[in-house]
Amino acid sequence: GYSGLPRSVDGLAAAPEWPALRALLPDMTGLRVVDLGCGFGWFCRFAREAGAARVLGLDISERMLTRARGETRDNGITYERADLEHLDLPQAVFDLAYSSLALHYVEDLGRLFATVHRALVPGARFVFSIEHPIFMASRRPGWITDAEGHKSWPVDSYHLEGPRRTDWLAEGVLKYHRTLGTTLNLLIRNGFAIRHVEDFAPSEADIAARPDLAEERERPMFLLVAADRA
Amino acid sequence: GYSGLPRSVDGLAAAPEWPALRALLPDMTGLRVVDLGCGFGWFCRFAREAGAARVLGLDISERMLTRARGETRDNGITYERADLEHLDLPQAVFDLAYSSLALHYVEDLGRLFATVHRALVPGARFVFSIEHPIFMASRRPGWITDAEGHKSWPVDSYHLEGPRRTDWLAEGVLKYHRTLGTTLNLLIRNGFAIRHVEDFAPSEADIAARPDLAEERERPMFLLVAADRA
Repeated sequence: GYSGLPRSVDGLAAAPEWPALRALLPDMTGLRVVDLGCGFGWFCRFAREAGAARVLGLDISERMLTRARGETRDNGITYERADLEHLDLPQAVFDLAYSSLALHYVEDLGRLFATVHRALVPGARFVFSIEHPIFMASRRPGWITDAEGHKSWPVDSYHLEGPRRTDWLAEGVLKYHRTLGTTLNLLIRNGFAIRHVEDFAPSEADIAARPDLAEERERPMFLLVAADRA
Repeated sequence: GYSGLPRSVDGLAAAPEWPALRALLPDMTGLRVVDLGCGFGWFCRFAREAGAARVLGLDISERMLTRARGETRDNGITYERADLEHLDLPQAVFDLAYSSLALHYVEDLGRLFATVHRALVPGARFVFSIEHPIFMASRRPGWITDAEGHKSWPVDSYHLEGPRRTDWLAEGVLKYHRTLGTTLNLLIRNGFAIRHVEDFAPSEADIAARPDLAEERERPMFLLVAADRA
């Protein structure tokens, strides 16, 4: 399960995209932060160490929240169970919304973006990572090697938005594929100004340290986005 | 060559993406328009018929411009030869910039975006189509059919930005691959606010009329973007 992944054991440092995602964050001093899909709470604790005033970590998994609470000794962090599909948040109470690899589990992303927009103060930032549509589109995701040994990643069904079931970690995990345009336009229509879009790939230095990451430069696995609440 | 393509013979109506691109245009009444890569002048003439005050059509091909001039009887349209790679435009003289499938031939897109930004008045719109990075990334672009007959489009080398040579229409056509993030971030950094991003696919009605377009729903061939000059 999730708890055996390097990023679950070693936290943010084990996530190759973390430096790129961190570069999209504002100065955290004094910020009120909400983390959508906080998992074991690694980002919540980072945010506080970086100066955030308080952090609300939300996750649907009570098991993850229990471990997050067990590893956190900080009254500035609150963990709450919440389903992002039906999330309610108070109005204009956060200066930063953050989400790492959780939004592809949400079917009604427009509803969630509207909720996040209302919960942020004007000018606040929203930073998230999500599985890249190139990675998720195919009904048969997985590397293809041709007769000459060239490796490529298949894209098909790109415009067939909706559920994708995979057997990653657990059988039949349900994710929602959306085109890149759909995700960005949902942000724009819900009052966000897009500041940065990144098809994440590990750097050459990352690959020197972890040669198994080389294939990640062939096709993007994650999309990183920074947007500001207008 | 280009002149034999349906869109060259029958104009905008033969381009499946045209209705989606047209939907991104502002009311054209009285606008001063520049068309980057005008080809045979189909969009220039459309713009005038839709009410534009005047249109400047730019293309690098003298042969195309000659045909464009031959098919245009309208003093409101001027055609000029220009290389988008080294384009100069006067400052703040256009209300709309438009480009159809030309920007993937430009190596220094940041320079061109800066030039377009300067040439537009504040609040002006920039609408363009460009080959989609999913379509262009692979060093061996072309449908792959697996043992069970499933068709997919290969993505590899996605993060290897730079030249791509293909033998489409002519041998060794030189295009420039950029990640989606690079194209959008160049717009943002050059002072544009992104309003709409669309991985274009033909509609079901398009496919009913032209069944050969069905495969275009498997992977996007074009990216359509609308941005406003801040």
